[in-house]
Amino acid sequence: MKALIIAAGEGKRIRDLSRDLPKPLIPLLGLSLIERVILSAREAGVREFVVVVGFKGKRIMERLGDGSRYGVKIDYIENPDWRRGNGLSVLKAKGLISGKFLLMMADHVFDPGVLKDLLGRSVDKGGILVIDRRRREYIDVEDATKVRIEGELIRDIGKGLKDYDGIDCGIFLLSEEVFDAIEESIESGDDTLSGGIRVLAKKGRMRWFDIGERFWVDVDNEESFKTAERLLLKSLVKETDGPVSRYLNRAISLRISRYLVNTKVTPNTISWLSFSLSMISGLIYFLGGWASIAIAGLLAQVSSIIDGCDGEVARLKFQVSRYGGWLDSVIDRYADGMIILGMSYASWIIARNYMAWVFGFLALMGSLLNSYTAIKYDQIVKERKVRFRFGRDVRLFVIMLGSLTGLIFFTLIFLSLITNAENIRRLILVRHNT
Amino acid sequence: MKALIIAAGEGKRIRDLSRDLPKPLIPLLGLSLIERVILSAREAGVREFVVVVGFKGKRIMERLGDGSRYGVKIDYIENPDWRRGNGLSVLKAKGLISGKFLLMMADHVFDPGVLKDLLGRSVDKGGILVIDRRRREYIDVEDATKVRIEGELIRDIGKGLKDYDGIDCGIFLLSEEVFDAIEESIESGDDTLSGGIRVLAKKGRMRWFDIGERFWVDVDNEESFKTAERLLLKSLVKETDGPVSRYLNRAISLRISRYLVNTKVTPNTISWLSFSLSMISGLIYFLGGWASIAIAGLLAQVSSIIDGCDGEVARLKFQVSRYGGWLDSVIDRYADGMIILGMSYASWIIARNYMAWVFGFLALMGSLLNSYTAIKYDQIVKERKVRFRFGRDVRLFVIMLGSLTGLIFFTLIFLSLITNAENIRRLILVRHNT
Repeated sequence: MKALIIAAGEGKRIRDLSRDLPKPLIPLLGLSLIERVILSAREAGVREFVVVVGFKGKRIMERLGDGSRYGVKIDYIENPDWRRGNGLSVLKAKGLISGKFLLMMADHVFDPGVLKDLLGRSVDKGGILVIDRRRREYIDVEDATKVRIEGELIRDIGKGLKDYDGIDCGIFLLSEEVFDAIEESIESGDDTLSGGIRVLAKKGRMRWFDIGERFWVDVDNEESFKTAERLLLKSLVKETDGPVSRYLNRAISLRISRYLVNTKVTPNTISWLSFSLSMISGLIYFLGGWASIAIAGLLAQVSSIIDGCDGEVARLKFQVSRYGGWLDSVIDRYADGMIILGMSYASWIIARNYMAWVFGFLALMGSLLNSYTAIKYDQIVKERKVRFRFGRDVRLFVIMLGSLTGLIFFTLIFLSLITNAENIRRLILVRHNT
Repeated sequence: MKALIIAAGEGKRIRDLSRDLPKPLIPLLGLSLIERVILSAREAGVREFVVVVGFKGKRIMERLGDGSRYGVKIDYIENPDWRRGNGLSVLKAKGLISGKFLLMMADHVFDPGVLKDLLGRSVDKGGILVIDRRRREYIDVEDATKVRIEGELIRDIGKGLKDYDGIDCGIFLLSEEVFDAIEESIESGDDTLSGGIRVLAKKGRMRWFDIGERFWVDVDNEESFKTAERLLLKSLVKETDGPVSRYLNRAISLRISRYLVNTKVTPNTISWLSFSLSMISGLIYFLGGWASIAIAGLLAQVSSIIDGCDGEVARLKFQVSRYGGWLDSVIDRYADGMIILGMSYASWIIARNYMAWVFGFLALMGSLLNSYTAIKYDQIVKERKVRFRFGRDVRLFVIMLGSLTGLIFFTLIFLSLITNAENIRRLILVRHNT
C-alpha cells in the first residue's frame, strides 16, 4: 500500500521557527517533521510514498531524495497551485495511486501506533478518517477541523461546525473515490480536502477511527511545536517503568536524549557507555574507603540513568531493533553483576566477614533473577496494569543510597532479601495469572 | 469440531498384554491407548468426542466417563456388529456428526503434533487421510493398509495393493460424504472403512497428508506395543538438549520417568524434588572436606538428571503447562546459584584466597546469563539446527567432575571462563541471525 503525504503548504504562522526552511523540514527531536511522518508509516509497514510538494518543494526533494536512506521509495508530485486549497494537492495524485491508500499531512506529529491499527481496516469505497474524541487542553479547537458522527459514519466535517463529536487528526485511509469527491467539491467552489471529505460524508461513505489515548498534534505555530516535543518525550515513559525510573531517572534521561538525538550517537553506543560506567563503578568499589564507595555508588546511579537513553533515542529516531533491545538487556545484567561484585569485595574488606560474600551472592542471584522473571511478569504488568514494579531502577537507587551512607554490607543484606522476596512474589503472581 | 474414535474391535493378537482389558484400555506409559488418542486431539483443540464401542464397550465407557476428567465431552455409540468390518462402526455416527470431523483409531499411537497441522486444512467434501511415505523398519508392511497417490489425490487404497506410495496411518479429516461412501461400499460387499475411502478415492475426493518425520504405530501385537513405547520415549529427547543431556542424562531420566508415569507424582513435584537435591548439594559443600565435596558434586549431577524427568512426565501425561515450564526454569536458576555458592565457600575455606569468591561470582553470573541468553539462542538452535549447545547439563557435569577430583577452585575458574565465553559467542551469533 502507498502513502500520500501533503507537504505543499507554506506554514506562515511558524516562520520564526522555520527560518528559511519549508515547514515539513523543521527539525523536531532529531528528525524533520516529514521524516517523522514517513518513518511512522514505515514502522506500520508502508514502503512506497508519494509526496506532494509546493512551497520550497525543491528543498524537500533534496533532503528526502528517493527515500533509499529511509529504506522506502519516494516519488514526488509538484503542485504549483499550493496557495489554493489543499484538496488540489491531493487531487494531483489521481492516476498515480490505485486501491486503498494512506493520506497524511507532513506537519502532523502523532503516536506511530495509530497507523498499525488503522491499516488493519478494510476500505473498499469511501474512506476512514482518524478523529480525536477527547477534549485535550493542548488542541486549538477554534482552528481545528471538526466532525459530526452518527454510528460508525461521519455525517459532516468543517471548521465551522458548532455541534461536533471529534476533531479531524489529518490521517486518512482512503479509496480512489476521494478524487472524484474532491473534483465534485471544487466544482461547487470548495477546493479544500475537507470539502471532498464532506462530499463522501454526505453520501454515507466516510467512517471514523478513534485515535484514543494516543497523542497527535497539528504543528502550525510555535506553541504547538513545543506541545509536540513535550508529548513525544512523554510517550517515551514506559508502562513497565518502575518508580525511580518514572519519577527521577526519566526526568534526567529525557533531557540527555533530547540532546543526543541531534548527534550521531547510536542507541547501541549509549548501551555500551552505560555498561562501561557500571564496570568502572564495580572497579572503584575495589579501591575501598568511604570516598571510593560513595563515588562508585553515584556512578552506578548515573549508569542507571544513561541506561534509559538508549531506548529513548532509538524510539525517537525510529532505530529500535530487537537485537539492540536484547543486547542492552544482556549487558545490563553484566553491569549489575560487576557492581554487586565490587560491593561484596568492599564489604568483605571492611567487615572481614565471609558473610559479605554470601549476601553478595544472594543479592546477585536475586537481581539477575529479577530480570529473568521480568520477561513474564511484565506481560502481566501490561495486561493487568499492576502499578508496583521492583526492578533495576530501584536496585541501583538503593545501591547508591547504601554507598553514600557507607552501609554497603547492610545494603547487600537488604538487596538479598528484597530481590528474592520479589521473585517469590512474582512466582505466585504469575501462577495466579496464567 | 468433533472427533470420532473407533474403539469397537477385539484386538485378538494382543490378548497376552491386555489380559481381560479391551485393547483401547491397555496402559502405555501412564495412559491407556484411547486416553492418549483423546488427549492428543485435545492438545490440538478438539473438545467433543464420539467413541464407537463394541467388544467390552462397558469397560471403556466406565473408564472414560463423560470426559470431564479430561476436560472434554465424550458421547458413546454402541456397535453390536463389531465383529464385522470397521466401516459399520464409522457408519453408526451418521446423523450424530455434522460438518468436517476427525476420525481416529483407539489403538494408534502417534506424535500429537500431526493433528495440529492436519486440523488447519479445509475439507468441504471427501476428506484427507494421513499417510506415511517413508519406509520404516518397525512397520509391518504386510499387514498395513497401503495407498496409491497421484498429485494431491489418493487413487486407491487397500491391504493388497502391490504398487503403493504410502501407508494409511489411520487418522482422517473427513466430511459427512464419507457416510454415503461407506454405504455404497457395503452394498457392493465391502464393509470396511477402507472400502468407503476407496469409493471416495475413485471419485477423486480423497486427498493425503504426509505424516513426515513424525512417528506413528498401529498397536496390534506385543512387538508394536514395545515399538510404540520406544518411539514415545525417544520423542521426548529435545532438539535443544545439550550433549550431556542427550548421551547421558536422558538415558537415565527416561528410565525414571517410565516408572514415574505410573505413579501420581506430578511434574511440579519432580521440579521441586530436583530443586531440593540442588539445595542439599549446596549445603553439603559448606561442610568442607573431600568426601563432602564429592558427595555434593554427585548430588548436583543427580539433580540435573532428575530435572529432565519433570518435562518428560509432563509430556507423556499431557500435563505440560506454560507455568510449570516457567516455574521449573526459575527454580533451576536458584538451584544453580546455591551449588555455585557452596562451591565458592568450600574453595575459599581450602584456599583462603578471596579470589575463590570472585571466580564464584563470575561463574554464577556466566551460568545465570547462559540461561538468560538461552531464551533467544534456542530459537536459533531450532531454526538453524546448530548442534553445539553449552548449557546446564554440561555445567553440572563439569561441577561433578571437578568435585570428585577435588579441583573445585579450578572448576570455578573454568566455569567463569567457559560460561561467559559462551555468552559472548551467543551475543555474536544472535547478532548475525536477527
